[in-house]
Amino acid sequence: MVKELIKNNLCSACNLRSVFFARSYSGEKLCKNCFSDSIESKVKKTISKYKMFKFDDKIAVAVSGGKDSVSLLHILSKTQKNQPRSSLIAIIIDEGIQNYREEALEIAVSNCNKLKIDYKIVSFKNLYGLTLDEIISRRGENEKKSSCAFCGVFRRKAINYAARLVNADKIVTAHTLDDEVQTILLNIFHGDITRLSKGSPISEIVHPCFIQKVKPFCEILERESALYAYVKNIKFQDTPCPYSSEALRNDVRSMLNYMEEKHAGTKFTVFQTIKKIRPVLYQLNKKNSFGDCSNCGEPASLGLCKACEMLNRIK
Amino acid sequence: MVKELIKNNLCSACNLRSVFFARSYSGEKLCKNCFSDSIESKVKKTISKYKMFKFDDKIAVAVSGGKDSVSLLHILSKTQKNQPRSSLIAIIIDEGIQNYREEALEIAVSNCNKLKIDYKIVSFKNLYGLTLDEIISRRGENEKKSSCAFCGVFRRKAINYAARLVNADKIVTAHTLDDEVQTILLNIFHGDITRLSKGSPISEIVHPCFIQKVKPFCEILERESALYAYVKNIKFQDTPCPYSSEALRNDVRSMLNYMEEKHAGTKFTVFQTIKKIRPVLYQLNKKNSFGDCSNCGEPASLGLCKACEMLNRIK
Repeated sequence: MVKELIKNNLCSACNLRSVFFARSYSGEKLCKNCFSDSIESKVKKTISKYKMFKFDDKIAVAVSGGKDSVSLLHILSKTQKNQPRSSLIAIIIDEGIQNYREEALEIAVSNCNKLKIDYKIVSFKNLYGLTLDEIISRRGENEKKSSCAFCGVFRRKAINYAARLVNADKIVTAHTLDDEVQTILLNIFHGDITRLSKGSPISEIVHPCFIQKVKPFCEILERESALYAYVKNIKFQDTPCPYSSEALRNDVRSMLNYMEEKHAGTKFTVFQTIKKIRPVLYQLNKKNSFGDCSNCGEPASLGLCKACEMLNRIK
Repeated sequence: MVKELIKNNLCSACNLRSVFFARSYSGEKLCKNCFSDSIESKVKKTISKYKMFKFDDKIAVAVSGGKDSVSLLHILSKTQKNQPRSSLIAIIIDEGIQNYREEALEIAVSNCNKLKIDYKIVSFKNLYGLTLDEIISRRGENEKKSSCAFCGVFRRKAINYAARLVNADKIVTAHTLDDEVQTILLNIFHGDITRLSKGSPISEIVHPCFIQKVKPFCEILERESALYAYVKNIKFQDTPCPYSSEALRNDVRSMLNYMEEKHAGTKFTVFQTIKKIRPVLYQLNKKNSFGDCSNCGEPASLGLCKACEMLNRIK
């Protein structure tokens, strides 16, 4: 009886140390070591399954200072040690959010220093002439787009710009399985088939100026990414952004967490389902080609790129 | 001020009678008369948009006795009056559920009599040799399929059988927008792309024995179908089935109701999104052809049709 109890409390991978985490969708019960090993090995498998990197890629990791991007930076600095001709660099975007972004920047930089990884900081102020604070305060009262929608457009352009600046071959973002599945459902709820057809774990290159984006965390639950940071004693910012305002995404998040709790594996199934149908959706939408923005020369689907169009509206 | 108050309380369609129902996704505020007119006219539009009927169709309406099927029967008996060469007949399936189905059957029959519509009753007992009660009690303990999954297979076969028996050209089912969207999300959560690709408001005819199924309520909210029955003083059964057991569907239902309340129009957007991508999904899955069941001769995708396969397991 006592033996049985002790046995039940032993890690199902090493059978040595006591259980720290029970993975409900697989039935595994893991100790701290085997848990973090499992995350690292899953990231490696994801990278190889989707052929995310070439052996000599210069890889730019977009690091915000939050748990996901910092955890991923730590994992990549470990796994890429076996790829001597590949190199890592961190891209840190300073959106300009007073009393919030400074801490995240400091955390991002200190993690880079600890891991001896070079970094490049690009600020909204330098790139667009305005901080996010200024952009948000200048928005008209009739502006329907949320702060997150504004920030997202400017951040995506800044990341691509920074990655070109450092001659990167790939951009890594730390989108988790949760982010991916939330976005999938949001696109369905918004009826946005074009976006549903994009968002693959490795992006299509639709313009020579776009650097390919890959998502090595796309099959990692957000919960497990946070736990990895905790187990590895990694420093990250955990205050939420003061502009965070996506009501619908928050509802979808709660709903998916509830479904995952009651029906373990739901998030992964949704991810797999859309992965299977994405190629046909992509073919359906392929007509959307990219030209050059008439203002900044960056890729644009119409005359102006989205960032320049938004800046025009604000300025 | 008082004038304003009275004006605000007047139906936005007729401007005469006081408001009974506010339709949040469209902003309409309708009196009882205009509300029920709007449902009838929406059903007519749906029928014509999807080209559900030919002018001389013999239409078999599957009537369970619940609010949706009874409301739809009333609406069709009204709208089909303009189609003198078309005819209506009700199909009533007696699954054999003691202390539950008797009441529903009586209600279904009394509605048919009131509307002077012929009906045909087909029972599980006659068709399969077993009532649903008997089928459920004989299931093995290891049976993973829910009662609803069992009943669904037998009921679909019974409806198609009954429709052939009365020489119907079309089968009408009263699936509402809620049913459709719940099924869409369930198929995504189950990763079932084949089912996602089917379920169009008018079914594909994949075998000569299958009678085409159409869903004139596919764009009507369940809530409005219930309200229609209430306004029109239609008798229906409102006790839930004692076997009702679809935990996941209930979760999806609550979640969608919550989303619809917070973001009016969500259900319709999901419906439209999947409608747009269904044709490409269908092409992807077209290889699934139908042969004949080696036991009963009805359509089957493998050797036995699903109903015969389930009966074999039970008997």
